[in-house]
Amino acid sequence: MGKRIDPANLPEIIGTLYPPPFDKPCRARGRKKLGDAAGLTQFGVNLLRLPSGAWSGQRHWHQEQDEFVYVVSGEVVLVTDAGEEVLKEGECAGFKAGDRNGHHLQNRGQQNVLVLEIGTRTKTDYCEYPDIDLASDKCSGAMYQHKDGTPYPDLKRRGPDDP
Amino acid sequence: MGKRIDPANLPEIIGTLYPPPFDKPCRARGRKKLGDAAGLTQFGVNLLRLPSGAWSGQRHWHQEQDEFVYVVSGEVVLVTDAGEEVLKEGECAGFKAGDRNGHHLQNRGQQNVLVLEIGTRTKTDYCEYPDIDLASDKCSGAMYQHKDGTPYPDLKRRGPDDP
Repeated sequence: MGKRIDPANLPEIIGTLYPPPFDKPCRARGRKKLGDAAGLTQFGVNLLRLPSGAWSGQRHWHQEQDEFVYVVSGEVVLVTDAGEEVLKEGECAGFKAGDRNGHHLQNRGQQNVLVLEIGTRTKTDYCEYPDIDLASDKCSGAMYQHKDGTPYPDLKRRGPDDP
Repeated sequence: MGKRIDPANLPEIIGTLYPPPFDKPCRARGRKKLGDAAGLTQFGVNLLRLPSGAWSGQRHWHQEQDEFVYVVSGEVVLVTDAGEEVLKEGECAGFKAGDRNGHHLQNRGQQNVLVLEIGTRTKTDYCEYPDIDLASDKCSGAMYQHKDGTPYPDLKRRGPDDP
């Protein structure tokens, strides 16, 4: 069997599991899981589509997982502790595991932006969101917690049309 | 300090360390190490440039490292045990660690092709080249071996203009 993957043939997962109100800027984002489609397990590769106004996620950093983003088309604003930078088509950035400098991408333009996201898969991880009361500890029972450890119970995927 | 990486500002490593005659089809290939530029260690991300006629490498598979390729511009021929497939701009393929189905990319067109390559970094790995008498065991003292384990001693980088 051949190995070719055409992302046009893969389902797109739209929306976010973030508890409200943190879901709002991410509801319109779409992801296609390219690495999963190839049967890979050591790292994930997603084709992220950000419509006008959408964010890749809330600003965050991972304790145990390296991350990398590459802009396939369009341009996005990368926000880190250093401030804002524009990443144009063909530009990229990486985020070392354990570097507590949170990052995310915002599409402030009018067109869709496509970004390849790569991240290591690990059994354990702690992900923190420096701007908001949100954390994600893979060793806890729940996907998202307040920073005091209390779980967020209300987890459902919310897309652009959900109330 | 900002995180933006413009590949135009990174050095390109041209050529190959393969022992002759296996170096021939890979001498013109160029790589920019994007993941290293970001300080990542868990996986590598390279921007691979294949001029007309160049191969990404000899056909191979990895025992311990997942691999993924995404065509940024142009089109390439992917060769595996299943035969040949054309990967167009925006298409991709992945190769699971331990899957003994060797793969490589050939640029049979007239234009440069750009490909993002992602591969896990592991302390140990065994890489085998099914079509030729070549293997690479990270636990051995040498970078490349014959399949009987005898090392290839003659390792220097050869580019397009070397004899």
